[in-house]
Amino acid sequence: MTRRAGIKFTGIGLAFLSLSVTGQPVHGAEQELTHSVAEIAYGLDTLYLLLSGAMVMWMAAGFSMLECGLVRSKNVVEILTKNITLFAIASIACLLVGYNIMYGDGGSILPSFSFLVGGDHSPADISLGGENHYSRIADFFFQVVFVATAMSVVSGAIAERMKLWAFLLFAVVMCSAIYPVQGYWKWGGGFLDHLGFLDFAGSGVVHLCGASAALAGVLLLGPRLGKYKNGRIKAIPGSNLPLASLGTFILWFGWFGFNGGSQLRISTVSDANAVAMAFANTNMAAAGGLLAALILSRIWFGKADLTMALNGALAGLVAITAEPVTPSLLTATGVGAVAGILVVISIILLDKAHIDDPVGAISVHGVSGIWGLLAVTITNPEASLIAQLIGITTIFSWVFITSIITWFAIKKVMGLRISPEEEHEGVDLCECGLTAYPEFTKD
Amino acid sequence: MTRRAGIKFTGIGLAFLSLSVTGQPVHGAEQELTHSVAEIAYGLDTLYLLLSGAMVMWMAAGFSMLECGLVRSKNVVEILTKNITLFAIASIACLLVGYNIMYGDGGSILPSFSFLVGGDHSPADISLGGENHYSRIADFFFQVVFVATAMSVVSGAIAERMKLWAFLLFAVVMCSAIYPVQGYWKWGGGFLDHLGFLDFAGSGVVHLCGASAALAGVLLLGPRLGKYKNGRIKAIPGSNLPLASLGTFILWFGWFGFNGGSQLRISTVSDANAVAMAFANTNMAAAGGLLAALILSRIWFGKADLTMALNGALAGLVAITAEPVTPSLLTATGVGAVAGILVVISIILLDKAHIDDPVGAISVHGVSGIWGLLAVTITNPEASLIAQLIGITTIFSWVFITSIITWFAIKKVMGLRISPEEEHEGVDLCECGLTAYPEFTKD
Amino acid sequence: MTRRAGIKFTGIGLAFLSLSVTGQPVHGAEQELTHSVAEIAYGLDTLYLLLSGAMVMWMAAGFSMLECGLVRSKNVVEILTKNITLFAIASIACLLVGYNIMYGDGGSILPSFSFLVGGDHSPADISLGGENHYSRIADFFFQVVFVATAMSVVSGAIAERMKLWAFLLFAVVMCSAIYPVQGYWKWGGGFLDHLGFLDFAGSGVVHLCGASAALAGVLLLGPRLGKYKNGRIKAIPGSNLPLASLGTFILWFGWFGFNGGSQLRISTVSDANAVAMAFANTNMAAAGGLLAALILSRIWFGKADLTMALNGALAGLVAITAEPVTPSLLTATGVGAVAGILVVISIILLDKAHIDDPVGAISVHGVSGIWGLLAVTITNPEASLIAQLIGITTIFSWVFITSIITWFAIKKVMGLRISPEEEHEGVDLCECGLTAYPEFTKD
Repeated sequence: MTRRAGIKFTGIGLAFLSLSVTGQPVHGAEQELTHSVAEIAYGLDTLYLLLSGAMVMWMAAGFSMLECGLVRSKNVVEILTKNITLFAIASIACLLVGYNIMYGDGGSILPSFSFLVGGDHSPADISLGGENHYSRIADFFFQVVFVATAMSVVSGAIAERMKLWAFLLFAVVMCSAIYPVQGYWKWGGGFLDHLGFLDFAGSGVVHLCGASAALAGVLLLGPRLGKYKNGRIKAIPGSNLPLASLGTFILWFGWFGFNGGSQLRISTVSDANAVAMAFANTNMAAAGGLLAALILSRIWFGKADLTMALNGALAGLVAITAEPVTPSLLTATGVGAVAGILVVISIILLDKAHIDDPVGAISVHGVSGIWGLLAVTITNPEASLIAQLIGITTIFSWVFITSIITWFAIKKVMGLRISPEEEHEGVDLCECGLTAYPEFTKD
Repeated sequence: MTRRAGIKFTGIGLAFLSLSVTGQPVHGAEQELTHSVAEIAYGLDTLYLLLSGAMVMWMAAGFSMLECGLVRSKNVVEILTKNITLFAIASIACLLVGYNIMYGDGGSILPSFSFLVGGDHSPADISLGGENHYSRIADFFFQVVFVATAMSVVSGAIAERMKLWAFLLFAVVMCSAIYPVQGYWKWGGGFLDHLGFLDFAGSGVVHLCGASAALAGVLLLGPRLGKYKNGRIKAIPGSNLPLASLGTFILWFGWFGFNGGSQLRISTVSDANAVAMAFANTNMAAAGGLLAALILSRIWFGKADLTMALNGALAGLVAITAEPVTPSLLTATGVGAVAGILVVISIILLDKAHIDDPVGAISVHGVSGIWGLLAVTITNPEASLIAQLIGITTIFSWVFITSIITWFAIKKVMGLRISPEEEHEGVDLCECGLTAYPEFTKD
Repeated sequence: MTRRAGIKFTGIGLAFLSLSVTGQPVHGAEQELTHSVAEIAYGLDTLYLLLSGAMVMWMAAGFSMLECGLVRSKNVVEILTKNITLFAIASIACLLVGYNIMYGDGGSILPSFSFLVGGDHSPADISLGGENHYSRIADFFFQVVFVATAMSVVSGAIAERMKLWAFLLFAVVMCSAIYPVQGYWKWGGGFLDHLGFLDFAGSGVVHLCGASAALAGVLLLGPRLGKYKNGRIKAIPGSNLPLASLGTFILWFGWFGFNGGSQLRISTVSDANAVAMAFANTNMAAAGGLLAALILSRIWFGKADLTMALNGALAGLVAITAEPVTPSLLTATGVGAVAGILVVISIILLDKAHIDDPVGAISVHGVSGIWGLLAVTITNPEASLIAQLIGITTIFSWVFITSIITWFAIKKVMGLRISPEEEHEGVDLCECGLTAYPEFTKD
């Protein structure tokens, strides 16, 4: 077959023919015709889901640029290696077991377990309004990229001092088991879902989950050498702020797929309206978070701190993720603005508590994630504060405890932290044998 | 509700059911069926508009990278801060008043004024061929990102010497009032539209508008220190050409959404053909502009000047924006090529006139914008040269005069320019308290 | 016409009206109704193709960032200039003659020849299931960007020593003649297609083609100065690994358009399923390739070599391109993993053979391309090993021989290589008169 002219006569074509030939449509032909409408809707929803998934995949580039811009140049190659490799691990772990754990037919608490992912829908499966209204493989693709997002949150927080392979081993456990189990509880139809816990696109399931695992890692790992010396906090500036800004722009852009795609359908008017609202609210929350953090940093520190502004935008994005559809545009801006203020305060407080998170990931994804989940009770009349609190507590406890255990086991087996000499020299040389900017860095 | 299986029985599903049950469709059922076709078209057009909007939002990253690559490293953090913050300001200003000014029910010259943006369409509103054929919120989102584009033009031209907060204050005025009013005159149905002024996606409304405000700022601000000394022009090279190139690629990519999305519909054959033409012509004009500028710079300066080539591509993009649908692919290449030549000449002439525009924004967006608006008279038989000239004059005069007044008022209130010491040290340290590349720059 | 309210009454609207008015649909009205379904499918397929094309265009940015990150800073401006200019050349060459050669009505071996590209479809042309099911101009746009991809492969391999204008001249010949002829043999319906040679999205037609031209250039050009000295291989590290990683992420993202778009239709269930499979398999192959190359480099060199991991991901992407639809997700991961292993071995062997390819393009696109074409025989029962071998041999021979001749002719006319002094100083200064990072590089 040539590539350009993909001539395929399908049910649609036949329906067209039968209608052209007979003067009046008969039952069978009408069914075919209706079917063709369902087919196009299937194609539209699949395209929408695939493009949304691709935009979320692109967020992995955003995390990479953000994190490599916020660490010192001697630790850049390793953080790039971590970020691109965790995406590969997330994809493969999801395929092998994760996706089935998350979307299988388990009980209320215990998910089921099976390997690999099944086939796609046939034309006979689909009907307008039914649940098979898009390709199952497209759904798999869309879910895979979410796992990678959660894992990306971890990589920034433990930067500049962890062994590469310890991190990658943790990524295997996180993507295969820790993430999918709590994902099942909400999105797979487990007990959090029954309880009425609301989390549209994953302020909890994705971002709080990632932040909880990160916090566990940071606590076991300890701060970077020289960060807290004689009770004083040393500021360690990022080595490449254009890349950090680029990373934030990428995340902002990709978040339209993250939140907009989570409606899972765009082929009806109500769904299309919901997706549009998700896009616009996502944008407004980022704008609100950015401005609030920038102004607060100007007032508090006397300078317009770009890194705080970036974190403010990201915090707004995380917060609106729990419910980007129901708030008005102004409310969404406010939800983002509160997140932008909280994130600045949280970053300062964590630093004072000597919890060393080089990129602010715990504040951006954890604190803002919790805020977003609570804010749902403001925007959604049917939301229950109790259910939200149970959801937050459950996700945090499950992820934090299983992560602590996993990090601890890895520590026993291979160690978590590079040696002080290696840390002084930079993790790039000892783990990757390369430096990021061999011609630029001073001496 | 679980996340994966979004079972919602809508009118479509009911139509399907009624058709399956009854042997022959009755009037009511047929209406439902037709309705479902309109629903899918609504979903398709909404998706198309949202993705186009996301691509235009992504252009903000392009401007950031382009501008931060073309300035000196000591002024990079501030330009990043400006670019991402102006996007937030544009979003919020549009929501509060800008969108309503631009698309309200005003008179021929005076637009109306109201706050916030209304709700979305219900299924009963939509009909194939009607004007409610996509989500109103998607339209809002698509329009918002255009304002940010106009504002991004300004940030490059006044780089390396303006106070951060003076710029941000100007952004508030520009996005809330200056831009929407002239936007109303054309796209909101005001007098320029009645006159037959043609500007498909904004060579005038967006790019000339941004360039006019930039020119006003540059004239009030004066050139950078040391740029014109003893009558000689000092070349000040950009600090990071890979980022400038990346920015150009981002803009090139995003422009498909900018021009392709401006058809506002893709669900009919004629609209789909128009959108395809807009994509292809946008690409050809950029190609023509790039090649022409590269070859001219090779002939004129003896070297293949990358920054001129990048500006040539952007000039081609700006020029084709006034009419990307009607020209043939070859004509579009030619329109771009002329823009590529004009932009090189314009950059040289402005420099000779001691108008200091560090990134060439006034030439790229102003001169090419005017050229694009005039070129419409070649490609569109119904276009009137008089109407185009009136449109150009109106947009330039309105934006230039109101901008001069605004810049001047800001100058009186807080000052426009940083001190010579601060400028020497770099605007980053005094305004943002950070440097972009703390480990790289020499001494 | 105002911009927002694009009121256009088309056949769809009329169908709706007629159905609303008459109690029972009559023949003519039904045809209109069916027609409207075909119209929306036309819009959907056109949007799908245009967005896929834009994603492939975006790959040009990926190649630029990848290559500029992997060469030394003194050769960065020139490689950026090459990459963006070749995209412009590909667009214009395709428009003038390339597209017609590739998709004209030639014989089995000799393609036809004509200028420029014809118009778009009218509503009367389209019918569901027919071959005119999307905009012809969208198809042109989609094909154009593929040519640029093939050409981008070349630019990396011959980096750091070739004259800029020699490369650009070669790009003209490659995009106008060498690429379209072999493309015609497969995708235009020539003898390779008749033979049963399978190449879904271009492991052969695009990637092997590019690599063959690159190999010819590298052999004529010789290695970089100092690369192979006294029988020892000197490692020349890339100057900016974050940009190289960013480039890989861009390519990974864009590849969803490259492979996913090559189904050319998404408006039926079977096509939508195929596109979804192409997206997911593309992702899995990249993941497999990355992990395999990273682990192999860790075992072989003792370090987690980021550049090998990046090349592994790209090798997986190239390999799955020959057939991304039929393999299972696990098989696709395996196809990618084998590619990841092959690419590491190939890079080492080419280096030992003193074939100097600074970015590994010949291994990534040539070796993996061949592997992908052979792997089709594993996943597709109807595939013939003989046909695949004939296809590989034909593409390689045609492109390699015509490229050698072209490179040789260019060498005679203007020379291929810059002088040793220029090479020592960097190709940027002599060809472009600019340096990429004037403030960063040491001394």
